[in-house]
Amino acid sequence: MAESSSPTRSGRRPGRSGTRDRILQVARNQFASKGFDHTTIRSIASESGVDSALVHHYFGTKQRLLVDAIELPIDPATILGALEAAPVDALGETLARTVIGVWDSTHQPAVVAAVRSALTGGEENLVRSFLLEVALKGIAARVDSPTGTGDLRVALVASQMTGLFVTRHLLRIEALRTLSTEQTVQLIAPTLQRYFTGPLEPV
Amino acid sequence: MAESSSPTRSGRRPGRSGTRDRILQVARNQFASKGFDHTTIRSIASESGVDSALVHHYFGTKQRLLVDAIELPIDPATILGALEAAPVDALGETLARTVIGVWDSTHQPAVVAAVRSALTGGEENLVRSFLLEVALKGIAARVDSPTGTGDLRVALVASQMTGLFVTRHLLRIEALRTLSTEQTVQLIAPTLQRYFTGPLEPV
Repeated sequence: MAESSSPTRSGRRPGRSGTRDRILQVARNQFASKGFDHTTIRSIASESGVDSALVHHYFGTKQRLLVDAIELPIDPATILGALEAAPVDALGETLARTVIGVWDSTHQPAVVAAVRSALTGGEENLVRSFLLEVALKGIAARVDSPTGTGDLRVALVASQMTGLFVTRHLLRIEALRTLSTEQTVQLIAPTLQRYFTGPLEPV
Repeated sequence: MAESSSPTRSGRRPGRSGTRDRILQVARNQFASKGFDHTTIRSIASESGVDSALVHHYFGTKQRLLVDAIELPIDPATILGALEAAPVDALGETLARTVIGVWDSTHQPAVVAAVRSALTGGEENLVRSFLLEVALKGIAARVDSPTGTGDLRVALVASQMTGLFVTRHLLRIEALRTLSTEQTVQLIAPTLQRYFTGPLEPV
């Protein structure tokens, strides 16, 4: 999520890759400043000086455009595929294993840099949108029981996973930093599963 | 935790409050750069150009000096007192109620600013030291069962509370932001209590 190099703006008709880069930069700015809900393919196309159809052609949906705009070090489809394949009563362990697996992979430096930048650079809108609109949106519908609790359930999951990341990789608390991937999964998964499917206190 | 104004360095014998400010600034720098464990009252006194006894006279223990150095908007003794008075099997709810109560009080803007600054300004050492050496140290000993698990238990508690703060107050996730203090306590306390006293997966 580092600042990308400025796209060319000198010509009125930049080449294809110049146009694509410009759309990405505009998307990143609009997602960050207006938030996901108030950003539209049309508003991005308009500011980029292109037709909406071209934005769809390059990026597909608004969710896909968000994923491209924040330049994740890995394709979230990997994690989302594992979650979709998991039964509801295994979501906690599946989410913990796939996500913590990425944190503990060779991608770790890139993930740490991206999260640090996101939390510090006024990109809260981008992070929140990614978590809720891409990473957890499909799950919220599956755990919406009783009806209306899905958004709260995935938000609680996000709170535990975000905090685990901050304490383990940014604050580097020794007792967490020295855990293996599997130990971490075993400790955290029950909390995630309770948030996904356990009883919620009357709210 | 904002940068404090620079203490006067022009005279060799500044007044009492100049000396106190200078010690605080030195302490802040050493805690941040070397970490709590490797910072000593003696090293702070030495760099401040004063005797160790004067540092003790102004601030008492190294823990107290850390608390003064990070300029918390509230006195942590309030929270620590409540925790010390709580039985072990009520630690989760007591911690949730006292800490979230502070977040939701008139201190909220100051706490948000302090946490944001700490996570973004390379002050991870200060935050980690505060959490482990001041906020949770006394509790770790009380929940050290089986022996050796106390540090891990309080680190897990720190992970949930840190993540709740980041998602609720920095990322401002709607489903968490709109909860009342009491609703939040009821949702989070069972997780904290499990980390404090529940079974830990074999690690």
